[in-house]
Parts: sequence; structure tokens; C-alpha cells
Amino acid sequence: MVQQERARVTRENIVLGAAEVIRRFGYANATLGDIGDAAGVTKGALYFHFQSKEDIARALVEEQHRIAREAAVEIVMSDSSAVEKMMRLCMDLASRLVDDPIVRAGIRLTTDTSTFETPLQDPYRDWMATFEELAQQAADEGETNGRIPADRLARFIIPAFTGVQLVSETFTSRKDLPERVLEMWQIILTAIIPPDRLETSLASAANIFTAKPRRRRKR
Amino acid sequence: MVQQERARVTRENIVLGAAEVIRRFGYANATLGDIGDAAGVTKGALYFHFQSKEDIARALVEEQHRIAREAAVEIVMSDSSAVEKMMRLCMDLASRLVDDPIVRAGIRLTTDTSTFETPLQDPYRDWMATFEELAQQAADEGETNGRIPADRLARFIIPAFTGVQLVSETFTSRKDLPERVLEMWQIILTAIIPPDRLETSLASAANIFTAKPRRRRKR
Repeated sequence: MVQQERARVTRENIVLGAAEVIRRFGYANATLGDIGDAAGVTKGALYFHFQSKEDIARALVEEQHRIAREAAVEIVMSDSSAVEKMMRLCMDLASRLVDDPIVRAGIRLTTDTSTFETPLQDPYRDWMATFEELAQQAADEGETNGRIPADRLARFIIPAFTGVQLVSETFTSRKDLPERVLEMWQIILTAIIPPDRLETSLASAANIFTAKPRRRRKR
Repeated sequence: MVQQERARVTRENIVLGAAEVIRRFGYANATLGDIGDAAGVTKGALYFHFQSKEDIARALVEEQHRIAREAAVEIVMSDSSAVEKMMRLCMDLASRLVDDPIVRAGIRLTTDTSTFETPLQDPYRDWMATFEELAQQAADEGETNGRIPADRLARFIIPAFTGVQLVSETFTSRKDLPERVLEMWQIILTAIIPPDRLETSLASAANIFTAKPRRRRKR
């Protein structure tokens, strides 16, 4: 048991070390030696857990996705409205993209199209499915005006968020990300919320994207 | 003069060769040797024009940007409405992202955050400025409902488009890009066009994004 636990911790350390090295040098320039050094493990231990750099990258993206999805469950289970849940999901991911090293490195590996032989589709697919469900719920409950079908909205929000965080990274190292995601939602809300409830909805958006996140840090 | 012309052609060949190599192996894995081979030039000729791989990458991004901006001037000068111009600009770039090797490789170098020491901001900035001007024009001429300020709209459209093309690349190698950009515009139009003109505007969008592009191929 102790040995199993030790193996788990070593694996976690390697993934954290990889996140650190990728942040500093980029994935292409990162070597297994750098990752081992950053994690404080020997090459032997490294090769015990992972066969290649791409292997570690996959583990990192999986870990990033697990962290973000675990937080998402809490938000989806909360008693906010469906539209509010969608915004809270975006804010949660945005704040992790600012301050969680695993999430930061993971998204970089996902959007850099040269990281993997075949580009990763699953993370996008999972988020699109969650957002489609929420958008459908919002439509069913009359929260939205029904002009934009749920699948179309979900198919847009995920790529749009992806681009917004990428450009925010390019311009401000993501310092302005919550503000940019708020602006994205101001435009989306104007498209989907009936006119008589738009002001309330915009106020709730402003609230969500300017509040300091109160969240347990999950690993 | 002949020599100058020859130098220009060689330079162009190197950039085209780099586009080909980057498409096949990714930037990180591309070597100067590969690029020279693909371009049919010697290492000597390569080093006469460029000091490093990053140098070639910068030339490629500049060339991509020049191609797209030159086409943009034509669209901006046309007599479409300002909103239509914004959609045509997106469609023009979308179709180049499908079939122009320089534009394809250039955007990949721009969005892969590990390509350059400092990430490139100028291409985004130029497009945002163009779109802000058009969005302002649309507002001034009463084409839009005035709910979304021009700068906010431009600051969203460019990142959103960037994300849409990235995710389309991931899922379908950009085969569905015009369709996805149409969906993006259906949502944006619903946010910015007054209700009594929305149907006409949506029809014009469908028209723009499903038409085969009639354009001269500029280099």
C-alpha cells in the first residue's frame, strides 16, 4: 500500500514537473531529462511510469481535464439557472487558466496542434456535450429566446472560449481573461436572452466574471 | 535585376518549402535541411536569405498576413454593407485556411504558442483594428442595434474566429470551417442586428458562407 501510494505521488510529481518545464521551454524543447530534474526523480523512475515525452503530455492533459471536469460537476449540480451555470463553468476554467499550472500547461498542449500525432478531440467533445445539455435545459425552461439551437450554441461557445483564452495569453499572459470572457458572454447573452430579461442577465454575468472565485483547490 | 528577381524567387521558394515541411512534420520537428530539400535550394542559399528557422517562420507569417490583408483591402473597398464586409472577410480567410498552404502554415505558427520567444500580437491587432472600424461604421449607419460597442465586438470576433478555425482543424482538418463560421455569425448577428432586419441579415450570411469563393489567387 505504501509502495502504491509512493508510486502515485511520484507519477503526480512527474506530471507537475512536466507542467513546469513546458511552461518554461515549451513542449517541443522540453527533454525527459529536464522533466526528471524538475520533478526530482531519476530517469529510471521516469521510465518506470512513462514510455515517452508524449506519454507524459497525455497524462498531463488527462489530469488537466480531470481537474476541470471535477469542478464542473459541482457547478452543474448547483441550483443556478442553466445559463448561469454555463457562465460559471467558463469563469471556473478561466480562473484555473490563470493560476493552476497543470491546467495552464494542459490547455497549451491541447491547442498547440503539433503536440500529438493526432490532435485531441475528447476534451472539446466533453465540454460541448455539457454545454449542449445546459443550453437545451435553458431553452426548455424558457430562459432563452429559442433563436439559437442548443447544439449550435455549444458548438460555438467551446471554440470561442478556446480562442479567447489563446489571444488573452498572447496579449496579457491571460491577465485580462475574465474580462474578455465577460465580453464574450455579453455578446452571447444579447443573442439568446429575451429583451425583457437581458439587463438582469447582463448584471448576473458582470457579477460572475468580476467576483473572486471561491473554490476549493482540487487535485 | 535578373539576379534580384532570382533572389526573390529563391526566397519565396524557401518560404513555400517551409510551409510544406511544417504541414508535414510540425514546426518543432522541421529542420533547416528539410526546408532546403523541400524548396530545392542548398544550405548555402538558405543561409544567404535566413539566419535561422525562426527567421523563416517569421517570413512565413508575414507572407501569410500579407496575402490575407491584400484580399481584405478589396473586400473593405467593395460596396457591401459594413456587417457584410465583416462576414466576407471571415469567409475569405476561412477559404484560404482551407486551400492556401502559406496561410495554413502561417496561422499554425501564430496559434502554436511555442513557435516564437515572444508570441505574435500584430496579426491579431491588425484584424481587430479593421473589424472595429467596420463595426463602428455599421453602428453609425444604423445597421446594428448599438447594444455591443464596436471595440468590444472586434475584440471578440477575432479570438472567436481563431478558436473556431483551431477546433475545426482538430475535428475535420477544417473541412467544416465555412459552416462553423456561419454558425458563429448567426449568433453574432442575432446579438447585433435589429429584430426587423435579422431575417434578411441571416439570409445574407447563409449566402456568403455557402457560396464558392470567386477570388483571384494573390501572392
